[in-house]
Amino acid sequence: MYALIKETKAFGAEYREVEEKSLAAGEIRIAVEAAAICGTDIHYYKWDQAAENFASAFNVELPLILGHEFAGSIVEVGPGVEDKKVGDRVAIETHIPCGKCYQCQNGDAHNCNSTGIYGTTCDGAFADFAIAPASVAFKLPPSIETAEGALFEPAGVAMRGIDEANIKPGETVLIYGCGPIAIFAIQMARVCGAGTVIAVDINGYRVDMARKFGAVGINSTKDDVYSEVMRIAAARGGVDVVLELTGSPAVYKTVFDLIRREGRLVTIGHPPGEVPINFTKNVNLKGLSVKGIFGRRIWNTWWQLSGLVAGKKLDLMSVVTHRYKYEQHQEAFDMTAGNAGKILFMK
Amino acid sequence: MYALIKETKAFGAEYREVEEKSLAAGEIRIAVEAAAICGTDIHYYKWDQAAENFASAFNVELPLILGHEFAGSIVEVGPGVEDKKVGDRVAIETHIPCGKCYQCQNGDAHNCNSTGIYGTTCDGAFADFAIAPASVAFKLPPSIETAEGALFEPAGVAMRGIDEANIKPGETVLIYGCGPIAIFAIQMARVCGAGTVIAVDINGYRVDMARKFGAVGINSTKDDVYSEVMRIAAARGGVDVVLELTGSPAVYKTVFDLIRREGRLVTIGHPPGEVPINFTKNVNLKGLSVKGIFGRRIWNTWWQLSGLVAGKKLDLMSVVTHRYKYEQHQEAFDMTAGNAGKILFMK
Amino acid sequence: MYALIKETKAFGAEYREVEEKSLAAGEIRIAVEAAAICGTDIHYYKWDQAAENFASAFNVELPLILGHEFAGSIVEVGPGVEDKKVGDRVAIETHIPCGKCYQCQNGDAHNCNSTGIYGTTCDGAFADFAIAPASVAFKLPPSIETAEGALFEPAGVAMRGIDEANIKPGETVLIYGCGPIAIFAIQMARVCGAGTVIAVDINGYRVDMARKFGAVGINSTKDDVYSEVMRIAAARGGVDVVLELTGSPAVYKTVFDLIRREGRLVTIGHPPGEVPINFTKNVNLKGLSVKGIFGRRIWNTWWQLSGLVAGKKLDLMSVVTHRYKYEQHQEAFDMTAGNAGKILFMK
Amino acid sequence: MYALIKETKAFGAEYREVEEKSLAAGEIRIAVEAAAICGTDIHYYKWDQAAENFASAFNVELPLILGHEFAGSIVEVGPGVEDKKVGDRVAIETHIPCGKCYQCQNGDAHNCNSTGIYGTTCDGAFADFAIAPASVAFKLPPSIETAEGALFEPAGVAMRGIDEANIKPGETVLIYGCGPIAIFAIQMARVCGAGTVIAVDINGYRVDMARKFGAVGINSTKDDVYSEVMRIAAARGGVDVVLELTGSPAVYKTVFDLIRREGRLVTIGHPPGEVPINFTKNVNLKGLSVKGIFGRRIWNTWWQLSGLVAGKKLDLMSVVTHRYKYEQHQEAFDMTAGNAGKILFMK
Repeated sequence: MYALIKETKAFGAEYREVEEKSLAAGEIRIAVEAAAICGTDIHYYKWDQAAENFASAFNVELPLILGHEFAGSIVEVGPGVEDKKVGDRVAIETHIPCGKCYQCQNGDAHNCNSTGIYGTTCDGAFADFAIAPASVAFKLPPSIETAEGALFEPAGVAMRGIDEANIKPGETVLIYGCGPIAIFAIQMARVCGAGTVIAVDINGYRVDMARKFGAVGINSTKDDVYSEVMRIAAARGGVDVVLELTGSPAVYKTVFDLIRREGRLVTIGHPPGEVPINFTKNVNLKGLSVKGIFGRRIWNTWWQLSGLVAGKKLDLMSVVTHRYKYEQHQEAFDMTAGNAGKILFMK
Repeated sequence: MYALIKETKAFGAEYREVEEKSLAAGEIRIAVEAAAICGTDIHYYKWDQAAENFASAFNVELPLILGHEFAGSIVEVGPGVEDKKVGDRVAIETHIPCGKCYQCQNGDAHNCNSTGIYGTTCDGAFADFAIAPASVAFKLPPSIETAEGALFEPAGVAMRGIDEANIKPGETVLIYGCGPIAIFAIQMARVCGAGTVIAVDINGYRVDMARKFGAVGINSTKDDVYSEVMRIAAARGGVDVVLELTGSPAVYKTVFDLIRREGRLVTIGHPPGEVPINFTKNVNLKGLSVKGIFGRRIWNTWWQLSGLVAGKKLDLMSVVTHRYKYEQHQEAFDMTAGNAGKILFMK
Repeated sequence: MYALIKETKAFGAEYREVEEKSLAAGEIRIAVEAAAICGTDIHYYKWDQAAENFASAFNVELPLILGHEFAGSIVEVGPGVEDKKVGDRVAIETHIPCGKCYQCQNGDAHNCNSTGIYGTTCDGAFADFAIAPASVAFKLPPSIETAEGALFEPAGVAMRGIDEANIKPGETVLIYGCGPIAIFAIQMARVCGAGTVIAVDINGYRVDMARKFGAVGINSTKDDVYSEVMRIAAARGGVDVVLELTGSPAVYKTVFDLIRREGRLVTIGHPPGEVPINFTKNVNLKGLSVKGIFGRRIWNTWWQLSGLVAGKKLDLMSVVTHRYKYEQHQEAFDMTAGNAGKILFMK
Repeated sequence: MYALIKETKAFGAEYREVEEKSLAAGEIRIAVEAAAICGTDIHYYKWDQAAENFASAFNVELPLILGHEFAGSIVEVGPGVEDKKVGDRVAIETHIPCGKCYQCQNGDAHNCNSTGIYGTTCDGAFADFAIAPASVAFKLPPSIETAEGALFEPAGVAMRGIDEANIKPGETVLIYGCGPIAIFAIQMARVCGAGTVIAVDINGYRVDMARKFGAVGINSTKDDVYSEVMRIAAARGGVDVVLELTGSPAVYKTVFDLIRREGRLVTIGHPPGEVPINFTKNVNLKGLSVKGIFGRRIWNTWWQLSGLVAGKKLDLMSVVTHRYKYEQHQEAFDMTAGNAGKILFMK
């Protein structure tokens, strides 16, 4: 089969023929129908500092087939697989829990103490066929198309953030950043209780996309974020909830002033290095709650997504702006830096 | 001034001139702009068994000005009122907390141990002017029209039910009953996380109204409720949440089978007398959570409503189907038994 | 090996030699060190109406080895068992989840849509050796003795009830019933936030045991329960939480008046048939929360118990009053009707 | 009357005669029976940088009577006070809510958008008599002695921290710092669900006091905190909850490694300036929840304390190590830097 492979710790990847491996116990083979590009893939493709950090944190071994946001149909099941069968359409959870640790035994398997990461600690899915443990395969309900299933993993990050944000009816939710996960989050906030959703970015194309999906868009290169936010949220002394999706240290300098006392900050974007925080003023005296997000609840987040998509409350495909063949990988990865929503590789 | 007054423990009420009282400390006088008819008003108007029960539970004294769902503008403030002023547009919370008991001191003032009930333990608001404690007046934000404010009290019952139902993203919510509060609840469930909302009633007009507001409508006189519900909710073994709004003992016979294990039942409708419950099967082994609703959180529920209405997520006026003058009171009360949504008395 | 076997749908059981079965994939064989008698075992032993109900609900097939509250050491592991090994000391969770349904995939595996029940849908553990799926075996931490492990299953019911009761610091908790699970619950409530624990029973021996464990004991055959409770809980208008452990319809007639507005009722005891409930007065207007309990969270409840036992906050063995050999089964089962706490069969 | 007065922005305070003010509407006069020294008082006494910061943040005006943790008996009530009377024994909540803002109307009055601070924005209580708004006076139940009431305000900070920590049964709780509030927190954690409580300080006297109250004490100048904590908490990958009470930037460097994934950090101590935080590693990937604490819930925290003290689960007076007359103020404030628990001024 053909696959997009990271060969060396340098820019780029190679789309070439590779030998198919046989299945171990508990594994399934999936004919990949659609796969999306994630930020991690971009880091690996460029092989930047973040890629180095990941590589050392998770002992990444090259060559590595890239890609982990995908869906397809099962074409083969390995020994001992009982709850999945050939023909089942599945999407894959990236976090591979050990099943034995405290986290796994107490409802937090998504943050397992010795988690595997699909496409990082094992080969990924930018390929004709992908191998995965059956235990991390989510059967897509009939009402959900396979390509849409490829978006469950990234949309699941937004879904978990919204779930943990615990939005109460009528609250004002600020989404910091307007990339694809933010666009999912805007849609979700709007159907999960928010009265008003505000979205901020430095990229006009993305701010426009946020507006299209119903947010009050703020372009932080043109508008004064604080005064625009307070125009809406003054009656409560700030917004009730912020979802931080940029990972930008600059945002951490100003975001606390936008949140009301006893409000909530959900952090999803990963800042490089340390950011200075005034705990006394911005956490303690403010009575702030902060929650860090890593991964989707298994399988709760997936069922939440299914329920919203099946009920037509959420249109995941609307966030896809570009589709490519694997052969066009350089063009596709270039596009991630441009005016784009989610980018799919399609069979 | 003129007012609609309950004179005797018999059918009907009288619209006649009454003397205006002077304000006591902490009270305000409100020029009533709009007032809605509530189920309690209907019981009082008819003076049925429920009215007798209320009357003895709360020591109701006649004559009594009816009506408690209303809004208007303040025309006079009594001694000691500091946070309200003439000209403020306000809606009134029916539950009048004592402010001193455990409930009032611990966030449950809506269910005060010695609560007053507006329009029951004191005169109501079907009148030119109404007197109320300033402490139960909610200032309407500029974006909300006064007539809409008259609907905050009944809509607040639905809002509190939805809030306590704690809908998780994508859940299926069943609203049992399709009267005005149910219609509010359908709208709210749809913007507070539900994937699918199902609504059941025995009245075709009301089921149609539920459908218009986005619910899957089931007419229990024609359709098999269980099979219709399971067609939607089979994957989870039933719906996640039921809001019971009918108070019908017959509903209590079948509703438990519609809820999945570890699901939730929110009871708002008041059954007459006792209903037999199989705790072993329907509560214990099912792992059910049941929550009874009485009143709106003060002021949390009101702020929730404000946030949703201001954000255009909720259109309270859309539930109003009929408007009358007080002189037309008999026609208005007759209409409550017919094909109607919410009925307003307008100045 | 020898085992205590239910042969026919009549009183009693037979302690006799049986052939050992071989292990299927995923199973383990355990040398049983201690096993406790549960109410279910008593129903089976007597073969009363409750036994008939269970038998038809779960398709019980005789002959059946009784017993499901137990612990021991693994002596053999079947094919495919990876996380358990010979020599591991384990206690067994009675609820055997399917792993595939909505409940299992969403944190409620304890209430699986097609659960097996150890000692009911398969042979139990009153025997020299017991066979169980490795997936329901909980490895006992070094600080916990094996015999104590046999009490994790019943103590886990109390633990789950206390956990779901969500006791806030200083609350007054009423435990209705003073049997072994109640005694566990009294201990737990006292170290999980309760300011005062009240316990009620009709049996003086049990009330005395409750007092020994720190509860304010009320003998409902001698004392006026309402006035005794209100002497303690009047400032809040009643107790904050009731754990109902008797399953007695008579208790359901009076228990609601003991709970404050917006208080909580956790139902664990199984009433036979239906009990009449005044929803309007006792659930709706009271703002009551009711939660039914079936089984222990897997494995959250078990870790909670481990943490409390390891920290010396809980002494499970203190509830054991009698120990027997299996040969003494009739004496042991007779004792369950007498003045006894928990009764153990010991190797 | 006599009072301990801060006259100028310099070290010290003066105990001298002052004129008594008359009561405004809503105020009460209290004969102070006991008053405790808080960290804020120490900053004011020394007039250090923190005092400067407070002074500018809250517009502190000198001269100012110091002290805000106190209790006594009401000797006079001002106009309009209805729910308090002469002779009532009361303790005072330091945060004086406006009653009108979003926070006050939504259950967060303790963090009012325009809060007053007793002893900072108005005169305090180190005096023969103190004046306070009746609205922030908590009536002490009969079972609680007046001097003990003086400790409700500081103990309430610990109580709120423990409440927000939401300790689940059997969890391991780490208290960082062993000052008086920490000692309260240790006692509370032990009766609110913790399996094991660990306490860390750099002061041997304080570590010993923590041990006396049942914590596993770690002296961070002698022991390796990480290895000592993991000896206890390894099975979960770290402790479940940390209460940070030191405000030391050094603690922020190491504390995250002590907490398990999806664990919780409650921050109470106020770090001077900013502390650098690695959000990616320590918040996001760890799935951490952080909650800042400012003040006690009004009146929920006070009722929680009452319930625990009345039930003999908490002995507040046990934390008091020294008692002084106001004349001995210099000796008393010197003692706060030494080997001491809570220090009281007694009438």
